[in-house]
Amino acid sequence: MIKERTPPPAGGGRGVNVCLSPALISLYNVEDYVVVIIDIFRASSSICYGIENGASGIIPVYLVKDCAAYRDTHPDYLLAAERDGKVVDGFDFGNSPFSYTAEKVSGKTIVLTTTNGTHALHLSRKAKKIVLGSFLNLTALCDWLKKQDENILLVCAGWKNNFNLEDTLFAGAVVEQLLELGFSPDDAAIAANDLYQTGKQDINEYLKKTSHSERLKKLGIEKDIEFCLQLDICTAIPILHGDKIVKLAE
Amino acid sequence: MIKERTPPPAGGGRGVNVCLSPALISLYNVEDYVVVIIDIFRASSSICYGIENGASGIIPVYLVKDCAAYRDTHPDYLLAAERDGKVVDGFDFGNSPFSYTAEKVSGKTIVLTTTNGTHALHLSRKAKKIVLGSFLNLTALCDWLKKQDENILLVCAGWKNNFNLEDTLFAGAVVEQLLELGFSPDDAAIAANDLYQTGKQDINEYLKKTSHSERLKKLGIEKDIEFCLQLDICTAIPILHGDKIVKLAE
Repeated sequence: MIKERTPPPAGGGRGVNVCLSPALISLYNVEDYVVVIIDIFRASSSICYGIENGASGIIPVYLVKDCAAYRDTHPDYLLAAERDGKVVDGFDFGNSPFSYTAEKVSGKTIVLTTTNGTHALHLSRKAKKIVLGSFLNLTALCDWLKKQDENILLVCAGWKNNFNLEDTLFAGAVVEQLLELGFSPDDAAIAANDLYQTGKQDINEYLKKTSHSERLKKLGIEKDIEFCLQLDICTAIPILHGDKIVKLAE
Repeated sequence: MIKERTPPPAGGGRGVNVCLSPALISLYNVEDYVVVIIDIFRASSSICYGIENGASGIIPVYLVKDCAAYRDTHPDYLLAAERDGKVVDGFDFGNSPFSYTAEKVSGKTIVLTTTNGTHALHLSRKAKKIVLGSFLNLTALCDWLKKQDENILLVCAGWKNNFNLEDTLFAGAVVEQLLELGFSPDDAAIAANDLYQTGKQDINEYLKKTSHSERLKKLGIEKDIEFCLQLDICTAIPILHGDKIVKLAE
């Protein structure tokens, strides 16, 4: 087994790398990076929206039973569990962004377990900082990333440990902005940016040719998809602080 | 750890999937596929060229010492070993295509260990059939793939277990041809094809922006790169037969 980690770029310039799947994360020294977790459909989008709407914190957990365990210890928490794109029976909600409105989440703590996003988050926990990105907070996120004197690793949550197009396209949208500042891309960042250039005129249309789109359509969540592809309706940046995702203080 | 394998497409149509890195291969049931191993710079290109030029067989081995072991048992074999893009000291040659001319390899058996290609080959060994692809034999390969009544998995050898652009671009060139016949692509196949469409007008120029290109330039093998990007100068298809890569019989 070849195991060699990808070093940040030499020469002092900042680098932007894209990890196309959680299964590739061991190839990076995550402790050398500010990490952005990307799970466009729908965890990272809903988390951005929930934090924007005043959720006091979101606790990502790995297993459905870890989520359920909060029912007795913290009856005031909202419990969100999703597997294979569906709300798990007996839970308040999953990760549809429409469950993360101000009315529902303002001032609340949410415990969340999702298929792919939580997985990527857990694997990245040694990073310098971990923030969450989505089209909803793209520009705010990029403005903040540009101010960090760090290499950036964009981690695509993917679908069941494999590559997916929507997370990669969003990574490309971030890469586009960081390249303007002279960040050095790795091959995956170049690819993500080029794919974003191909699809950016109408991302929803572009993604219709994907298998994931078919899968999501079967789940009846086209409205969620449309919602998650809106640009810059949020300015909050969710950041992992201890075991909880909170709003990054300005 | 999420481990779920990607099934071939439902509905009876043939699928074309792209495995973007050997580190993702456990996500596929390789035994359900005809696998194409892709290591454009330079193993799969040189193997295509060597088989075209009459090498009687190429034995891929995992370790340099496994390669060296043939020195005593088979003094007539040519031994090729490459690590990090360089010929290992004490070996006849590595994987520059210029070492695989008819003059050098015709009628010979070659034992080869390379950084990425052999790794990908070993991980795919349970596939229905394993062939090798490169720009050198693109059309011959695609014509043959179209005649197989099987799902196709294009395995990019990548660079040290991570994504690279040149292998992905070639995968995209194959996907382009298979889509014309109605094969169903997965997300990675869609991405590979779209990247190929972006770069196909001048692949050498496109790849110049990659990190790997910089790395290869430092190794002084620009001529190899140019060679490996030639289209359809070969018609032979190398296939793994037992432990040996041989010419596919028509």
